[in-house]
Amino acid sequence: MKDQVREILEKYRKAEDFHRPRPPFSLLPQFIDHTLLKPEASEEDVLRLCREAIKVKFYSVCLHPCWVPIARKELGDSGVQLGTVVGFPLGANSSDTKLEEALWCAKQGATEIDMVMNIGFLKSGHYNACTEEITRIVEKTRLPIKVIIETCLLTEEEKVLATLMVAEAGAAFVKTSTGFSAGGATVEDVRLLRFAAQEKLKVKASGGIRTLTQALEMIQAGADRIGTSSGIKIIEEAKGTPV
Amino acid sequence: MKDQVREILEKYRKAEDFHRPRPPFSLLPQFIDHTLLKPEASEEDVLRLCREAIKVKFYSVCLHPCWVPIARKELGDSGVQLGTVVGFPLGANSSDTKLEEALWCAKQGATEIDMVMNIGFLKSGHYNACTEEITRIVEKTRLPIKVIIETCLLTEEEKVLATLMVAEAGAAFVKTSTGFSAGGATVEDVRLLRFAAQEKLKVKASGGIRTLTQALEMIQAGADRIGTSSGIKIIEEAKGTPV
Repeated sequence: MKDQVREILEKYRKAEDFHRPRPPFSLLPQFIDHTLLKPEASEEDVLRLCREAIKVKFYSVCLHPCWVPIARKELGDSGVQLGTVVGFPLGANSSDTKLEEALWCAKQGATEIDMVMNIGFLKSGHYNACTEEITRIVEKTRLPIKVIIETCLLTEEEKVLATLMVAEAGAAFVKTSTGFSAGGATVEDVRLLRFAAQEKLKVKASGGIRTLTQALEMIQAGADRIGTSSGIKIIEEAKGTPV
Repeated sequence: MKDQVREILEKYRKAEDFHRPRPPFSLLPQFIDHTLLKPEASEEDVLRLCREAIKVKFYSVCLHPCWVPIARKELGDSGVQLGTVVGFPLGANSSDTKLEEALWCAKQGATEIDMVMNIGFLKSGHYNACTEEITRIVEKTRLPIKVIIETCLLTEEEKVLATLMVAEAGAAFVKTSTGFSAGGATVEDVRLLRFAAQEKLKVKASGGIRTLTQALEMIQAGADRIGTSSGIKIIEEAKGTPV
């Protein structure tokens, strides 16, 4: 894969910057995973998140596994997707545990899963273990899987390599960040991941996205989904902004 | 338990500060869990950690589940304990997943487990769920369990309450911090946890302990174990310090 990575990076550097037109503000909520991942969040916070998501028509909520059963009840048949996280935020669990966690969440009614790649295995060259871990979860849950590669910990080559691995494994999305590491999504990384993914994957930008301007920049750079805990603030900003 | 918490806090405020004599430097390594929890750590880093632990005779290594099989081989019958983490660092997994993770680690040869309490459940008043989660892991793994309560996210009352719950659940240690949240161990928290634990639990101080002075302060305040990724530096410092 190393040659392929080099080739993609060469092409990427020569390519023109990708620019997607700004979506109409009315569509903005459908780009957003309304996210609450603070470990100290309470049941009340979780219920509020779900109610906000239903009201604003966010694409989904994204919360920790322990809250999936409660969120499942609260979201009912509202159409809001129920996203959760697996191996989060460090990705250094065993593959068996990650699979078990994903299956548990699916059984409890989660409809999307954001899992963290095993970054240490990637750094150690254990590429097959990384990919197989994802493939098993894709195949056994049959849910859309977003794989977080934690871009701030990776070199440019590793970002491309990880994206190729995520595509090969059959996931639906490559996702930039957990929001719990040294850095979050950047416009540059979204462009690079989108280019490397070659239409085989969607791109989710997450980590540090707190304003309308940032959200729009990410979407225009190629992000198909935005993970943020500032969804309400972003939508309020959009309402106050001339279209 | 609320009355008991209030009573303990009143007594604690009136009690004299606990001071344990400084241990001889030759015993220092046996207080230390030699720790590597960066998600980007590679296999080479893990092997180095194990070799250092054997050489220095640290009490244990502490690393992520995905590295337990490799560490098990490397540590062999050196006598160094093999510690790992469960539900780390946010504690917001399902109880089933935490148990499965703990059992997987035990089966692969881990001999100590540091698990994170479900902080959101604690904040929501789901005390039974918090305690049962720990009890199941204690009973099914039969290993010494250290429960991280993430002190920096808790009020003083919650710190005492969490410690009582950890004791009731049958764990071996209450542990201050993951090292991945807003703050780490403080001398004041170690004293409070030690007082609340009433000899029923040992105390592990962790998070931000990087110097000999800090390590000694924690031990003198009542910490029975120190979790640190600066073990080598601390021991080197001790060697250069007049006894």
